[in-house]
Amino acid sequence: MNNESIALYEAMSTLRAVRRLRPDPIADEVLQRILQAAAWAPSGGNAQPWRIIAVRDEQLRKAVGDLYRPQWQVYGENARRGVEHLQGEARTKRERMLDACDHLGEHMGEAPVLLVFCFNPNHMAITDAELGRPSVVGGGSVYPALQNAMLACVSEGVGCTLTTLLCYEEAPLKALLQIPDDWYTCAVMPIGWPVRGGHGPISRRPVNKLCFADTFGQPLEL
Amino acid sequence: MNNESIALYEAMSTLRAVRRLRPDPIADEVLQRILQAAAWAPSGGNAQPWRIIAVRDEQLRKAVGDLYRPQWQVYGENARRGVEHLQGEARTKRERMLDACDHLGEHMGEAPVLLVFCFNPNHMAITDAELGRPSVVGGGSVYPALQNAMLACVSEGVGCTLTTLLCYEEAPLKALLQIPDDWYTCAVMPIGWPVRGGHGPISRRPVNKLCFADTFGQPLEL
Repeated sequence: MNNESIALYEAMSTLRAVRRLRPDPIADEVLQRILQAAAWAPSGGNAQPWRIIAVRDEQLRKAVGDLYRPQWQVYGENARRGVEHLQGEARTKRERMLDACDHLGEHMGEAPVLLVFCFNPNHMAITDAELGRPSVVGGGSVYPALQNAMLACVSEGVGCTLTTLLCYEEAPLKALLQIPDDWYTCAVMPIGWPVRGGHGPISRRPVNKLCFADTFGQPLEL
Repeated sequence: MNNESIALYEAMSTLRAVRRLRPDPIADEVLQRILQAAAWAPSGGNAQPWRIIAVRDEQLRKAVGDLYRPQWQVYGENARRGVEHLQGEARTKRERMLDACDHLGEHMGEAPVLLVFCFNPNHMAITDAELGRPSVVGGGSVYPALQNAMLACVSEGVGCTLTTLLCYEEAPLKALLQIPDDWYTCAVMPIGWPVRGGHGPISRRPVNKLCFADTFGQPLEL
């Protein structure tokens, strides 16, 4: 166990999507600490129903990037249209974010490591599977591990961002990475040293817009 | 922003389910820091499609606990049967865990705060909704916030555990907490000061059992 890390609240409050990544390699010991962070995460029944494929092979990374590019193009075009009604700083900020997304769309395969997160639903108790509304509970046993990995990236100075668009290309992605039939993919996280400032200030709603007292919508005064 | 927190890797490596909680209240500033940690979490498109209801009212907590108790009884009985084939230390360990779960099942409503996590799927891009297999991607925009809250609990010395069984009682839970039609529940996290040692050593698979190199199943040597 390595406890040489930054303070918890500093990591959380500076974890941002870093989408411009240098191609330089990530040292093994840095990658080890990021993966260890993921491994520490809790999961339902401690089943740890996830696996990470750390894709470093250049050809495989290029192939994953080639699957991502057209998906981002479609998604990004829609997102650009959603910006048109915005004005002033809100618009500039959103456009800057989309520029970074475009860069990632073009260059994902050049990140030195792509962390492909897989999960097996047979090892999950998905308590909201039959409620007639979108189910999310399976994610409760995998995304804590992703969050741990991203927080570790902050501590290590490594850029990262969580992408889920490759679910639209799950079949070819599974074939490419030899993922067994009963395992599926839930995120691809490119990581690498940042081109620009890396992690830093984030923009989030204040606690009193997100949290309520006793019943939904009732102001929480702390 | 408050950065007086423990080291990131220390928090992650000692976050365990703490199921025996004292009824003593949690100070407002401690609860504020736990909720702030959740608010810092990333989400798809920065939509933050989740809300937390911090249930502190005694009657409401009791009512939530009364919904949880029978659900745990059913789940726990099944879990006890799953222990029968285990031997020695593995069995003792599992039984000790189930004893703690039984305690929580009986006493959830006595925890000083129940954090009820809600989400709105209309604010999520669920890229794996139509794949003909269980969907988890919606969870990618809520469970990072839960993980942040749990890590903050470690830093604050507050016990916590993530439960999802109350999805089986979503309709009455929504009615009780006045949750609007288009919002749903994905976790109830009782928090409180620990009766026993609180957070501490955890048992997880090693990185090399969870992580692969380039393709699924290929050993990763770091």
